Amino acid sequence: MISDLATEILIPACAVVGILFSLVQWFIVAKVKVSSEKHVNNGGSAKNGYNDYLIEEEDGANDQEVIAKCAEIQNAISEGATSFLFTEYQYVGVFMVAFAILIFLFLGSVEGFSTKGQACTYSPLKECKPALATALFSTISFVLGAVTSVVSGFLGMKIATFANARTTLEARKGVGKAFIVAFRSGAVMGFLLAANGLLVLYITINLFKLYYGDDWEGLFEAITGYGLGGSSMALFGRVGGGIYTKAADVGADLVGKVERNIPEDDPRNPAVIADNVGDNVGDIAGMGSDLFGSYAESSCAALVVASISSFGINHEFTAMCYPLLVSSMGIIVCLITTLFATDFFEIKVVNEIEPALKKQLIISTALMTVGVAIISWFALPSSFTIFNFGTQKVVHNWQLFLCVCVGLWAGLIIGFVTEYYTSNAYCPVQDVADSCRTGAATNVIFGLALGYKSVIIPIFAIAASIFVSFSFAAMYGIAVAALGMLSTIATGLAIDAYGPISDNAGGIAEMAGMSHHIRERTDALDAAGNTTAAIGKGFAIGSAALVSLALFGAFVSRASISTVDVLTPKVFIGLLVGAMLPYWFSAMTMKSVGSAALKMVEEVRRQFNTIPGLMEGTAKPDYATCVKISTDASIKEMIPPGALVMLTPLIVGTFFGVETLSGVLAGSLVSGVQVAISASNTGGAWDNAKKYIEAGASEHARTLGPKGSEPHKAAVIGDTIGDPLKDTSGPSLNILIKLMAVESLVFAPFFATHGGLLFKIFQ
Amino acid sequence: MISDLATEILIPACAVVGILFSLVQWFIVAKVKVSSEKHVNNGGSAKNGYNDYLIEEEDGANDQEVIAKCAEIQNAISEGATSFLFTEYQYVGVFMVAFAILIFLFLGSVEGFSTKGQACTYSPLKECKPALATALFSTISFVLGAVTSVVSGFLGMKIATFANARTTLEARKGVGKAFIVAFRSGAVMGFLLAANGLLVLYITINLFKLYYGDDWEGLFEAITGYGLGGSSMALFGRVGGGIYTKAADVGADLVGKVERNIPEDDPRNPAVIADNVGDNVGDIAGMGSDLFGSYAESSCAALVVASISSFGINHEFTAMCYPLLVSSMGIIVCLITTLFATDFFEIKVVNEIEPALKKQLIISTALMTVGVAIISWFALPSSFTIFNFGTQKVVHNWQLFLCVCVGLWAGLIIGFVTEYYTSNAYCPVQDVADSCRTGAATNVIFGLALGYKSVIIPIFAIAASIFVSFSFAAMYGIAVAALGMLSTIATGLAIDAYGPISDNAGGIAEMAGMSHHIRERTDALDAAGNTTAAIGKGFAIGSAALVSLALFGAFVSRASISTVDVLTPKVFIGLLVGAMLPYWFSAMTMKSVGSAALKMVEEVRRQFNTIPGLMEGTAKPDYATCVKISTDASIKEMIPPGALVMLTPLIVGTFFGVETLSGVLAGSLVSGVQVAISASNTGGAWDNAKKYIEAGASEHARTLGPKGSEPHKAAVIGDTIGDPLKDTSGPSLNILIKLMAVESLVFAPFFATHGGLLFKIFQ
Repeated sequence: MISDLATEILIPACAVVGILFSLVQWFIVAKVKVSSEKHVNNGGSAKNGYNDYLIEEEDGANDQEVIAKCAEIQNAISEGATSFLFTEYQYVGVFMVAFAILIFLFLGSVEGFSTKGQACTYSPLKECKPALATALFSTISFVLGAVTSVVSGFLGMKIATFANARTTLEARKGVGKAFIVAFRSGAVMGFLLAANGLLVLYITINLFKLYYGDDWEGLFEAITGYGLGGSSMALFGRVGGGIYTKAADVGADLVGKVERNIPEDDPRNPAVIADNVGDNVGDIAGMGSDLFGSYAESSCAALVVASISSFGINHEFTAMCYPLLVSSMGIIVCLITTLFATDFFEIKVVNEIEPALKKQLIISTALMTVGVAIISWFALPSSFTIFNFGTQKVVHNWQLFLCVCVGLWAGLIIGFVTEYYTSNAYCPVQDVADSCRTGAATNVIFGLALGYKSVIIPIFAIAASIFVSFSFAAMYGIAVAALGMLSTIATGLAIDAYGPISDNAGGIAEMAGMSHHIRERTDALDAAGNTTAAIGKGFAIGSAALVSLALFGAFVSRASISTVDVLTPKVFIGLLVGAMLPYWFSAMTMKSVGSAALKMVEEVRRQFNTIPGLMEGTAKPDYATCVKISTDASIKEMIPPGALVMLTPLIVGTFFGVETLSGVLAGSLVSGVQVAISASNTGGAWDNAKKYIEAGASEHARTLGPKGSEPHKAAVIGDTIGDPLKDTSGPSLNILIKLMAVESLVFAPFFATHGGLLFKIFQ
Repeated sequence: MISDLATEILIPACAVVGILFSLVQWFIVAKVKVSSEKHVNNGGSAKNGYNDYLIEEEDGANDQEVIAKCAEIQNAISEGATSFLFTEYQYVGVFMVAFAILIFLFLGSVEGFSTKGQACTYSPLKECKPALATALFSTISFVLGAVTSVVSGFLGMKIATFANARTTLEARKGVGKAFIVAFRSGAVMGFLLAANGLLVLYITINLFKLYYGDDWEGLFEAITGYGLGGSSMALFGRVGGGIYTKAADVGADLVGKVERNIPEDDPRNPAVIADNVGDNVGDIAGMGSDLFGSYAESSCAALVVASISSFGINHEFTAMCYPLLVSSMGIIVCLITTLFATDFFEIKVVNEIEPALKKQLIISTALMTVGVAIISWFALPSSFTIFNFGTQKVVHNWQLFLCVCVGLWAGLIIGFVTEYYTSNAYCPVQDVADSCRTGAATNVIFGLALGYKSVIIPIFAIAASIFVSFSFAAMYGIAVAALGMLSTIATGLAIDAYGPISDNAGGIAEMAGMSHHIRERTDALDAAGNTTAAIGKGFAIGSAALVSLALFGAFVSRASISTVDVLTPKVFIGLLVGAMLPYWFSAMTMKSVGSAALKMVEEVRRQFNTIPGLMEGTAKPDYATCVKISTDASIKEMIPPGALVMLTPLIVGTFFGVETLSGVLAGSLVSGVQVAISASNTGGAWDNAKKYIEAGASEHARTLGPKGSEPHKAAVIGDTIGDPLKDTSGPSLNILIKLMAVESLVFAPFFATHGGLLFKIFQ
């Protein structure tokens, strides 16, 4: 067994190692210069950052003017993203303050703001801290979680906009070099987030301990606010960013590609900067906040259950910290895994990219399995008890090891299934591409069917891991299974962030007027990025399902419900309405994207019609207005779906009580998972079907192309429809299900005491 | 209280009145002649059937040639439909026999095929009939239900193909006349089905009673087979018919409207006959079987719960027959309601059609409320007990009255919400039409969002009726609420069947080369028909939700489960996987439609390319090959989704046991309802958005049109995507959820005794 002192040192040490590693990666990326300082030797010996020569054919492109242009575009994107995020954070900040006050008032009112200590729930002989303390500390941890989430998203965006032009410039040296820059930048974000989340959580726990002492039950109840803070910011980040990016993307495509027949990312398109900004605020900042939220919540869920199990009751600090130790090990494992992509092997040709990314997943999962075994062996007693809805269940350390592993490997399976359904290397996407022959309608029908079909195996994988981990270690098992799936989060985020960075790099190449070879290379990176983005979304939704089930279990325990019986009317109507919420939410977000895109289309059309010389490239479009349209629309439109998610648990809990709320949580979980997976995969498949036709890499693909052919036009329509599905409504749904669960958990004492007003009135 | 003798007479009497009424309607419709016998007085005094003169402008169209042509087309459609249904019934017949054997073997094996009587489950002191008898009688009632379902679908199709040309011919006299013929034909089908279903069920109960005597528990357990038979045939009818109709429709539209730019139903299109056949086998026969199935199942669910309540225990025959009495009253109420449309008022102009149909819904609901009050007053004791998961709950007659009413009125609300979201008189559809301005992609995004949004109110309506009826009278309350929603089934089917008949009438007018005025009138009928079809689907899915919950409750009682606790792993994984099944099923059916449509497209293209003179109208297309493609595809493709639905309960029950099966049923119910409602409404909205642009009835609509404009093309794409959603996968889903529930109920004794093999092995 590791001693408590060792645990105290190990966890922050791993976090610090993670942060240092990300700084090293950042330093390496920064060596690629985008400023116009003198770094070009005349002739064919040009170097930039690394000691690599530019590929001969591209030499001409290495002049100062192109670099200056890249720097300029990068600045514009970075400024747009920063300004949007600041605007967003202002609104979100107001919400955060208001909600913090709400948390304090609701939780404080449980015992009428009394400062007297109360009997502990699970060991009634001892005295625990007053409910008011829990209210105060929950509020503090909520704010901490929210701030960490915001910082995570912001840093991710900064890194991505720092790396995009660098990737473009490195693409001049070949696809391998560009890949490494993009991947390293992704790693910066991945490690920074994972380590940061762990460190802040760890410090918070230790600070709270100063007050709580050995009242671990109260301590970890208060800590759940951290998860709520993380996830509520993630919601606004995902929804706001998602609407932003897709309004710009859809608007740019509809006028640019479809009406004006100019290529994607053409600098003449007024919405092009907004589109590129969108990638960074939606896919990067949003995704960062989202996965941070999942990570924070699964840690909180595991900790709160552990605190009322034998770990907490007997004050076994190391065992109590098992979830954090798993995350710490994850950072080390991902660090080693990253080296496989950046140092041990080198990518030389385009079709090595996807295998390299897949290898990342496999290596990290395999290493992590060993890592978890070590942790389980050294940090856990060979047998202990876990709280299981009122009783204590005896669990062995190898069982907990299996719980983590089952989550870890289920994540890998979900990742691979997602890849199979969204990569254009396999027949599902090729079938969708083929259906474009008969027009957009069949493309859409086949795409929707593909999305629906793609849920089957992930659901079985999730169900199997739930069954195994639940049977072994009740809700704690589910929570650590979720942590297992998220333990390789640093690698997951790295390969996820890599996609939008490559996408931006391609955009910059196009806008800077670089040779089409550069664009082809970045497109190849981007195609692989589309698949990895879908894989990342698969992980996000899979872990969200496990996390929210664990939170749901913790909520049920904390609200003192013994069974959630479907056959009682209160629960069943909750189940039915809960299953409806993902649809309501999707309707809102999709409509928002649609409306914002319509506004964007009108503006872009107006500019093309009224600015003379725009199509000819002699006049510059007014990028700023498009950026403003996206910003305004997303800020305005993120409020109703945000309110739906944040208010539902409060309203249901207050007026209908904890039973109905349990039903709502279960219903939204089982229905939301399906909608989210199918939406993400449908969108990813359409995107790659279009890329498949555009790339024309096979005999079959060439019969469908080239760009501008009827099948290609049909594919573009599918791609546009998929945009809000895969980047707005789909990925926001996993936040919906997690957030409602964690919010219910935080407010559980209030609902249990004062909830169910309506039924109380009528009875 | 009504005496038992009066009940014995009343129920069959109402059924016979219903059948007679439908024969009268049929006789009136038959007065319109389509044969070429001498019935035209020369000049302007032409009459046909009624004493009405043709509108002057159309006189010229009243020559023998047109009538002969109409008769010829009608024959072709009728023959195509008959031949398809016979082919379908052959396959389905094999399945029926196999499944009947399976039922007998499974249920017989519960007590090892013993012929010894056993102690009754709920009154253990009495001796009940052996399990073998239940096996045998369940098998018989299964076969009876299946045959009744098949006959219902077949008769509906015969009536519809009998009426379509007659509607076309009457359209020459004005829109009002055409409406009445179409509506009367719908009424023939509605009354025949409702009365037939009631009569067969009633006779079966009375025959079974000869054997069972006063073992009502066994008797009504055996009767549940009737519901299973009805629904399993409905599944194949819906799926097979749905694939047939949409393969033909999508195929015809993609080549005809999009590529060749010829109008819908143009006789030059080789798929046009298949398309019209499809309306009759899919929308008519399928819908007929479906609603018959719902009706049979809700009656069975109510009866099986009643048999173990005080009605059954005390052998109160009249009270026991309450569900059947409600249906009997429904027939009488619908009869009066029908007169409002056919005799009391007359439609003169196009925009009176939709209000007239809406009035049908309101009148029938209002009258039925009174009817239910009468039945509840006279047929029920003022207080009685209802079985509620092991206990007996005291219920008053007014509470049961409210249960029926809440279902009845929830149906009306669902109907109106559906109308709001799918009629082009309101802004949701107009918004979708408006989004066609920016192309097909925004049309699809807005359409999907509309469908998602349209689930909100229906779900609240269903949830409210579940809560009220559940609170008042447990599962029996749910069952009678479902019956309440279905009590006006005759009117519902009449306004539902009216749509495809008008659609066909328009097709016949086009193919017979009649004046465009005729087509405009049938189009107006058809547009209202689209909305009523959506309303009908709303009723079907709403009632399916209630029915399957009631069946689910009956299953739980019969399988002796006391709670279905979401927080046990067995139930939760069932819930998750159950929620996935609608997606799996939709993926299969949509892919099937897509593939079949692709084949159809190729054939239609081939004919246009190889048959000289086809486009010019000098050569006839080869209709038969297209009919064959649709037939083959639908027969082949209906098997996998059918197998998924039929095998899931068997596999889950046998290997995972009744708890997991409970989860699967609850999950598929809460998730399937959402998918079904959103799919139906999205499809309906797209269809009517297209019609909105085509009709150009308002200033706004004209800015989007005319036919052939870019927005119109985008609208056609949406319409095509919506076809499989609204006519194949959406409406099949309500059968999925009902069928799995009723199948579980029938097999419950087997699962309870021998189920859960996998868990037994591992424990």
